Amino acid sequence: MRYGCSGRIARVDLAKRSYEIEEWDESIARMYLGGSGAATRILLERYPLDASALGPDAPLMLMAGLLTGTMVPTASKCSVCGRSPLTGLWTESTVGGHWPAKFKATGYDGLIITGASEAPVYLLIEEGSVAFGDASDLWGKDTYETSEVLKGRLGEDVIVAAIGPAGENLVNISSIMMGGHDARAAGRTGLGAVMGSKRLKAIAVRGKSRPAVKDASKVQATTRSILETLKKATQMLRDYGTAGAVRAVELTGDLPIRNWAQGSWPEGAAATCGQKIAETILEGHYSCYSCPIRCGKLVRIEAGPYKGTVAHGPEYETAAGFGAMCLNDDLNLLAAANDMCNRYGLDTISTANAVAFAMEAYERGIITREDTGGIEARFGAGTAMLDLVRKIAYKEDIGEVLGQGTKKAAEILGKNSIEFSVHTKGLEYAFHDPRAYTSMAPNYATANRGACHLEALTYFVENKAFPGRFLGLPDEWEPHGTERKAELCVAMQNFMSVFNPLGLCKFLMRGHAGPDVIADWVNGVTGWDLTGSELMRIGERLFNFHRMANVALGISRKDDTLPPRLMVHDRRTGGAAGSLPHIGKMLSEYYALRGWSEEGIPTRERLIDLGLIPETDGLFKVA
Amino acid sequence: MRYGCSGRIARVDLAKRSYEIEEWDESIARMYLGGSGAATRILLERYPLDASALGPDAPLMLMAGLLTGTMVPTASKCSVCGRSPLTGLWTESTVGGHWPAKFKATGYDGLIITGASEAPVYLLIEEGSVAFGDASDLWGKDTYETSEVLKGRLGEDVIVAAIGPAGENLVNISSIMMGGHDARAAGRTGLGAVMGSKRLKAIAVRGKSRPAVKDASKVQATTRSILETLKKATQMLRDYGTAGAVRAVELTGDLPIRNWAQGSWPEGAAATCGQKIAETILEGHYSCYSCPIRCGKLVRIEAGPYKGTVAHGPEYETAAGFGAMCLNDDLNLLAAANDMCNRYGLDTISTANAVAFAMEAYERGIITREDTGGIEARFGAGTAMLDLVRKIAYKEDIGEVLGQGTKKAAEILGKNSIEFSVHTKGLEYAFHDPRAYTSMAPNYATANRGACHLEALTYFVENKAFPGRFLGLPDEWEPHGTERKAELCVAMQNFMSVFNPLGLCKFLMRGHAGPDVIADWVNGVTGWDLTGSELMRIGERLFNFHRMANVALGISRKDDTLPPRLMVHDRRTGGAAGSLPHIGKMLSEYYALRGWSEEGIPTRERLIDLGLIPETDGLFKVA
Repeated sequence: MRYGCSGRIARVDLAKRSYEIEEWDESIARMYLGGSGAATRILLERYPLDASALGPDAPLMLMAGLLTGTMVPTASKCSVCGRSPLTGLWTESTVGGHWPAKFKATGYDGLIITGASEAPVYLLIEEGSVAFGDASDLWGKDTYETSEVLKGRLGEDVIVAAIGPAGENLVNISSIMMGGHDARAAGRTGLGAVMGSKRLKAIAVRGKSRPAVKDASKVQATTRSILETLKKATQMLRDYGTAGAVRAVELTGDLPIRNWAQGSWPEGAAATCGQKIAETILEGHYSCYSCPIRCGKLVRIEAGPYKGTVAHGPEYETAAGFGAMCLNDDLNLLAAANDMCNRYGLDTISTANAVAFAMEAYERGIITREDTGGIEARFGAGTAMLDLVRKIAYKEDIGEVLGQGTKKAAEILGKNSIEFSVHTKGLEYAFHDPRAYTSMAPNYATANRGACHLEALTYFVENKAFPGRFLGLPDEWEPHGTERKAELCVAMQNFMSVFNPLGLCKFLMRGHAGPDVIADWVNGVTGWDLTGSELMRIGERLFNFHRMANVALGISRKDDTLPPRLMVHDRRTGGAAGSLPHIGKMLSEYYALRGWSEEGIPTRERLIDLGLIPETDGLFKVA
Repeated sequence: MRYGCSGRIARVDLAKRSYEIEEWDESIARMYLGGSGAATRILLERYPLDASALGPDAPLMLMAGLLTGTMVPTASKCSVCGRSPLTGLWTESTVGGHWPAKFKATGYDGLIITGASEAPVYLLIEEGSVAFGDASDLWGKDTYETSEVLKGRLGEDVIVAAIGPAGENLVNISSIMMGGHDARAAGRTGLGAVMGSKRLKAIAVRGKSRPAVKDASKVQATTRSILETLKKATQMLRDYGTAGAVRAVELTGDLPIRNWAQGSWPEGAAATCGQKIAETILEGHYSCYSCPIRCGKLVRIEAGPYKGTVAHGPEYETAAGFGAMCLNDDLNLLAAANDMCNRYGLDTISTANAVAFAMEAYERGIITREDTGGIEARFGAGTAMLDLVRKIAYKEDIGEVLGQGTKKAAEILGKNSIEFSVHTKGLEYAFHDPRAYTSMAPNYATANRGACHLEALTYFVENKAFPGRFLGLPDEWEPHGTERKAELCVAMQNFMSVFNPLGLCKFLMRGHAGPDVIADWVNGVTGWDLTGSELMRIGERLFNFHRMANVALGISRKDDTLPPRLMVHDRRTGGAAGSLPHIGKMLSEYYALRGWSEEGIPTRERLIDLGLIPETDGLFKVA
């Protein structure tokens, strides 16, 4: 690789404290792009897919995208790949901020980390070297402290990725946090615990080599073509962050309330939205590397146990999770819960789901004060939410159960708690309700890493934030119907599949950056001659590639489901009252469109057509 | 009780070889009618609901209905109640023929059998006595032989209920067969194994006391009011038996083909229908006690390993199961499979499902010739079907797995065989497809004993065999829609709930015998003054009563589902091509109509309204 990626990967063995450098070939990038795509391809050759997620043999990969670190707008991201302790499936979790570009500026595209260190360890990645440092004094520290200590030790110009106590404690819903107080999270699917299992506390990076770009002026011209549209469409995000959406999505029934049971909560939504934050506790703004959108926010907590703290502002998912889901309308508590998750290294989506699940279990008498260690864990019960977050990170009392995710928690608690455990394939739902935009139902059911919104974001099309016509789809949708929803889901999953491997942010869609625009950027950076439709084909290939890994682990139609609360529970109020997704119908159409068997298995014909056979023959090794 | 039922129950302890007589009060009948209704009420007071189905403490009850043995047409039935080894739930399985009326003519309404005998035992029930006989020489004999031997020993005027080798071997899908060659089956939910676990081989009955009837002329007048309609509408059943429906249901997509995967099979349906039987192997006709319909048939097997045998003719379910489900178009093999199930004491519905499941597993390579003991177990593969039936009864090779039911079989076989295991709550589906008549979807999902068609028979209304207007429902239906389907399901479940406790056959509906007509018969027999709507209310009470037993055992919305093949698998051909039931929507409406919580739990308000609270307070004891 000459442009975009260097093709160089550092393979690190933590047990031996050694590393090797290898290079991957451009033909891999042509098939799978960079980042999670290329890496997963390489990785699957070498490691059994089903290595115990928290065992020393399980590989953990941090992979910058093909465009990461270039001047392409939002090209800030890397993906963390590995086996999820939460779902048991192969996973990637993508994160922005500045760590990924800085990492790529060391000249490496990725790290493959195996083995477990005896004592806590951190890595320092610089241009041309990987160094191992003693992290014994960091063990137990939160992610912010860890970053601060390492900056003090290694220099202010390093950026640190770290786990907090949750990852150390092997909590299944723990995250990897990047950039200290910047608090960018590889949040979903519990990869913090994988780092923890290797006793790898942190990875500091320092590099200055910008990736080579073939035709900078072409890249800039492409950027200019969408920049005005993008800036105009994202003004709300600059002003209020993603939490600026809370009020609007409450109106459509897209906001989950009281553990997915309640239909509307207008006062609460108004009290916990980004606009309210801007009026009250907003302290500043933040943007990821090379991003003109600047959706990040800082807040100052004004009351409660964390009074005076300057913290990262709650994003939409967090605002919905520690707001509506828990019936908490106190912004200061919300910001505190967010700050605690960032410090402890917990995924806010799964954690908020787990907390709301616990509140419902408590109110139903399935768990008691004895289980909660004396906490009155009711919905809207003030600091109870914060106490539960802490107990999850430290595996105290009921926290030990909740930290295993709501699927396992329901199995442990029994007493029909499965009725209000909201997950697919073990991953808790993101806070966009498939009853409000039914196209999200087939996506949540089939998304490769579990109930992930980011694998499709079809509501961007349904509510016209991204024009469907770019994908050959209509611009008008019946949000509660089934017509063409499977088709929308497939198209968006294919399109979304290229973003992580490229290292781009999906908010580019707000600028109407469709496949052609993305292809132009790829061509500008690499010198290739991809068309938009070829890019979509790569996306389809990547989605199928990931599905094949899941299939090798036993996934099929039986796992492509919605939990009972989202399939049968008809909220009687709000913007999606009376709406329930016809998941059977949409899935049936979905499999047909995908060219999969009616049981959700990619057919040999389709895999040949996508170039995955014979390319990947023998790749999906299961021990 | 003076009329209809005597109120006398014999409580038999097989371990002690002792029995006691007790009487139940008419107020119980007013609440729950007789048979399974009254008995279950009495029983739940005394025995823990969750006693291991095959343990000695589990009670097995045989209960004649309130009208059984009277001159009310079709009043021939009794229910066998207990805990199902197949589903783990409380169950009732109803059977006609002549045993129930003869049993009731001993002066008892029911038997409650507990304990396990050390050596094989049979019971002889006569007027005023229960005797215990040594069944050591009968153990291992089939149900026909058992009947013959006992008739030789006790007199030709006894009628025998017996288990075959399947029940002895504790096969989960075994039946209790009544009347020897008459081959009437308490087929569903595996109660033969409960008898087997008690080493109770048979129950012979001899009695002559007809139940007292308050107003015979009133009963006769009511009968006259529907008899012409009934006879006219059931001419097809008299001519061809229930298997006469095979061709017609194939046209609508209601016939399951090739383990529920194929959409049409016209030649096969024509080859295996009752009309074809009438043209070829039909030998005679049979009717249950007091039944003008006479749907039973006898056939003479003309070819194959059972050539020359005169056997009970396959009914619709059996014809569909060992015909279309297994792609077998050979009537002689079909009749042989039926005969073997009757002799071994196997439920033909669950057994045919298990055989078709095995054929699919074989064709997919999930099981091999090694598992099948050398049988080439392909669809349509001649005598392979018969070999599998035998292996199930004797727990040989793969038969040991299949006899546990397809739910457990799929768990054992793994490899995604759950994708084609077709059950709800562990009970295999009856052969009416919820994709053809979507009203059957909420019924199969919620039917108390699992995927049972008899708890609703909504397709009788959808295809106008019974006028919906009797239940306040329309007469025109969109078979593949959702409109009013939940309402239809609730109404029919409530109505159907009175048939078993009364001892009546649901084919009375063909004579348009609605709630008012049934109430008239009840009043004629008992002297009560029930109205049709009061009767419907009792039906609703009974359905909720049974649901409460299930709820106590952990059942809720999460269990009210369709298997993936029926929810997502869109058959591309046939009369129901493209149809998939919107189960989420229908269930949501269903719970609302039932006055249950959105998680399928009867609300306290509704239970009070139905008179079940405080009546049943403390009744649902779980150990």
